[in-house]
Amino acid sequence: MTNPPPAAPALRLGLLGAGGRMGQAIQTAAADARITVAGGIGREGPVVGPHADVAALAAACDVLIDFSTPAALAANLAAATAAGTPIVIGTTGLDPAHHAAIDAAAHTIPVLQAANTALGVNVLAWLVEQAAARLGPDWDIEIVEMHHRHKRDAPSGTALLLGTAAATGRNENHADLARTDRAAQPPAVRETGTIGYASLRGGSVAGDHQVIFATEGERIELGHRAESRAIFARGAVRAAGWLVGRAPGRYAMSDLFAD
Amino acid sequence: MTNPPPAAPALRLGLLGAGGRMGQAIQTAAADARITVAGGIGREGPVVGPHADVAALAAACDVLIDFSTPAALAANLAAATAAGTPIVIGTTGLDPAHHAAIDAAAHTIPVLQAANTALGVNVLAWLVEQAAARLGPDWDIEIVEMHHRHKRDAPSGTALLLGTAAATGRNENHADLARTDRAAQPPAVRETGTIGYASLRGGSVAGDHQVIFATEGERIELGHRAESRAIFARGAVRAAGWLVGRAPGRYAMSDLFAD
Amino acid sequence: MTNPPPAAPALRLGLLGAGGRMGQAIQTAAADARITVAGGIGREGPVVGPHADVAALAAACDVLIDFSTPAALAANLAAATAAGTPIVIGTTGLDPAHHAAIDAAAHTIPVLQAANTALGVNVLAWLVEQAAARLGPDWDIEIVEMHHRHKRDAPSGTALLLGTAAATGRNENHADLARTDRAAQPPAVRETGTIGYASLRGGSVAGDHQVIFATEGERIELGHRAESRAIFARGAVRAAGWLVGRAPGRYAMSDLFAD
Amino acid sequence: MTNPPPAAPALRLGLLGAGGRMGQAIQTAAADARITVAGGIGREGPVVGPHADVAALAAACDVLIDFSTPAALAANLAAATAAGTPIVIGTTGLDPAHHAAIDAAAHTIPVLQAANTALGVNVLAWLVEQAAARLGPDWDIEIVEMHHRHKRDAPSGTALLLGTAAATGRNENHADLARTDRAAQPPAVRETGTIGYASLRGGSVAGDHQVIFATEGERIELGHRAESRAIFARGAVRAAGWLVGRAPGRYAMSDLFAD
Repeated sequence: MTNPPPAAPALRLGLLGAGGRMGQAIQTAAADARITVAGGIGREGPVVGPHADVAALAAACDVLIDFSTPAALAANLAAATAAGTPIVIGTTGLDPAHHAAIDAAAHTIPVLQAANTALGVNVLAWLVEQAAARLGPDWDIEIVEMHHRHKRDAPSGTALLLGTAAATGRNENHADLARTDRAAQPPAVRETGTIGYASLRGGSVAGDHQVIFATEGERIELGHRAESRAIFARGAVRAAGWLVGRAPGRYAMSDLFAD
Repeated sequence: MTNPPPAAPALRLGLLGAGGRMGQAIQTAAADARITVAGGIGREGPVVGPHADVAALAAACDVLIDFSTPAALAANLAAATAAGTPIVIGTTGLDPAHHAAIDAAAHTIPVLQAANTALGVNVLAWLVEQAAARLGPDWDIEIVEMHHRHKRDAPSGTALLLGTAAATGRNENHADLARTDRAAQPPAVRETGTIGYASLRGGSVAGDHQVIFATEGERIELGHRAESRAIFARGAVRAAGWLVGRAPGRYAMSDLFAD
Repeated sequence: MTNPPPAAPALRLGLLGAGGRMGQAIQTAAADARITVAGGIGREGPVVGPHADVAALAAACDVLIDFSTPAALAANLAAATAAGTPIVIGTTGLDPAHHAAIDAAAHTIPVLQAANTALGVNVLAWLVEQAAARLGPDWDIEIVEMHHRHKRDAPSGTALLLGTAAATGRNENHADLARTDRAAQPPAVRETGTIGYASLRGGSVAGDHQVIFATEGERIELGHRAESRAIFARGAVRAAGWLVGRAPGRYAMSDLFAD
Repeated sequence: MTNPPPAAPALRLGLLGAGGRMGQAIQTAAADARITVAGGIGREGPVVGPHADVAALAAACDVLIDFSTPAALAANLAAATAAGTPIVIGTTGLDPAHHAAIDAAAHTIPVLQAANTALGVNVLAWLVEQAAARLGPDWDIEIVEMHHRHKRDAPSGTALLLGTAAATGRNENHADLARTDRAAQPPAVRETGTIGYASLRGGSVAGDHQVIFATEGERIELGHRAESRAIFARGAVRAAGWLVGRAPGRYAMSDLFAD
């Protein structure tokens, strides 16, 4: 008589930024995926579980998900590195110093950073890069996005993610190509090779994005619609599961579907 | 034995701005509608027919269509008024002085002025006004338009026509509500009651417009797509036929479908 | 010293079909609108509050909302009529006998029946009717809708509501014009004046609808997007508040914004 | 003094099906591309140039473009093979016997066959295949297309081309997955893994296609819009230029942008 194989040990998730809307959504997504939330730390301390601080939580879980604030990133990375715990970073508004800190941590632990953790958006970004590579500069690129009336920044981080993918597909530097605010410019025809951005705000739209490639007589339109914030949480939880057991390094959402 | 009824006398059309792309398109549209082009004057003189100048053409036709330039408007209105000939004005880029000249001519002759002579756009503007009146200010209004890569102005005149219709439906002044260039503003949430504009440019798009009403949980989207410039010419020719025999006064495209 | 004016008496809502998803959503919407749910009856009896049956609930509330089943409609109308309580009916799948029962009850109490209780959809239906009246039969009408993968019927009831509005705008009988399943027909060109339907199913789409008017060279597109079922609940709650104090008669969602 | 380098010898194009609308459009596209039309044969004989029949034309040109009829295909292939002249086949409505004849000819000459010669559509098909491969069967696939009111078949050949690309991406057989006419089916929920088709007809739409991937909470939409038939002609002319000098074999439009 043989013993049954041991069950896979349950994944223990640690949440940073557990008090916000995304923290709530991740707890729901984890429950749906039958993943245990070992604990959560919010802006003012523990929100879920017994862990007193980030260091304690990092030591007690298999993987961290961070949707806190840019200001908290350095300390969060330090705790993850000290504990050797992989970390998924969904915090937005990062600047080059934050990215340098992520690169440094990635020498020691697996780190996955994403401007948008929805799986569909990341597949779309890959498709946009491929399309830009194939279509050439005679296909003008325009990106339009719509978000709820409370969103403060424009264009959205996801729109910039898509535009950067397009620039990469053309072997160009995104900063050289990006154009916003056509109405504020002196009247002028479109500059060849640029990438135009337009931002709409209204109602409670979770996030719609469309990349338009337009040439003489035809258009290709590649878009994504998010129905609710739940998809960002589901993608982050899935990324966390994927990250456990990887070699140290910096990963992106696109690595999930490249396998 | 009775005689057959006399045939309706054929309409004789006079074109001002006959040398440009719209002049060509109107000749084609007139031919399709079996309307005679009595003559056409272009930037540098006669283009079609024997008439030496605008005054001679105005006297020799039943109705004028003007797609020339704002600079030519005063002289064109003077010739039409002197001859007592109705005139359709499709010239764009008019300022308040031009509109005052139109109002003055409308005391003597029928004048129909339109920022866009496509029938569908004008029906859409009426629908937008009605929707804005019914939906109230908790439905945010955003207007997005796409045109070909050579268009110089943004937002398009038609987008502004649609936004003005929305403001009218709310009993508001359009200039108080219009907002462009969200990315150029300091980060801030949307102001209640404003109308946002976004402009896309690329390829050879003849003109797409969409007015979005967005509130908590739902959106209404009212849009128009033009396949080619031919629809502007067809609408102008139809407006010309409708204008003949009207009382003096200032008319709009919306009067065609209000009958 | 003067007394404050008496507060408006709080509205007491009674729910029929309180056990289903829409029942839950209506309780949430009522809470958001600060309306008291006096009680709710589900398929197997009381779900909320002390009332033993529909008759007791009807007597104890100011207005009923019914999202139960067609089979329960006659008894629900009888209880509402006996108690003199206005009723909003959002139950779908009604046949002519159900509509006759509603008409009969409307002699005694105010009854508002709606195939779709989202405000935006009903404004859209009115706009579609007006557009169809103005555009004439040379503008082909096509209606496309998308719903989640679990929806069983096609076309959706809301698509048929929109198509009926279009037919009414043309002074035609909807049944004569409606066409589905183009791929199943023998190859043939489109019949003038018909209304085509197309149904898409996938994912978790709450409900997108678009009515397309297409003629030579241009299209008008009138659409609605629902982000979640919450908007149907909010519309029903708003309709209930509007219905209290009305004269007996049969009402529709369009009456809310006609005031 | 040096001689100028010899000019590249001009390409000589032969048109089969030269009398139809596509024949006209190809002549325009060839003129725009500064390519000489050596001759054209229509249904009833020579349309352009001195060549008495297909054999004479095939011998006198560098490459053939065939937009005639399925019935003429065998003779056209025979003439091209005899003359050793490459051929682009844009004729639609081909059956397996036609495809077998193309395969046979491709042993001797280069043959490029395309259901749709617009470059954008073929890039889109490739993107759809890649997306389907990455997204997996939990993303429902729906394809919706709109064409002018005179189109007889449904779904369009291009919609089927896109659906076949999606099936290929999933390593599935398209015929097993395709579903049309949802309204004609008994009420039933969507079958996992199927590909749904919907066809809209109206106005003068040259051809719009959209492939929707929908899963819980999000959608990816990949679409193409054609403004006019000119793009099909431009793509065919470009394919002809690309085909000259290739090795014998069967090619597709996707080979043009794979280089």
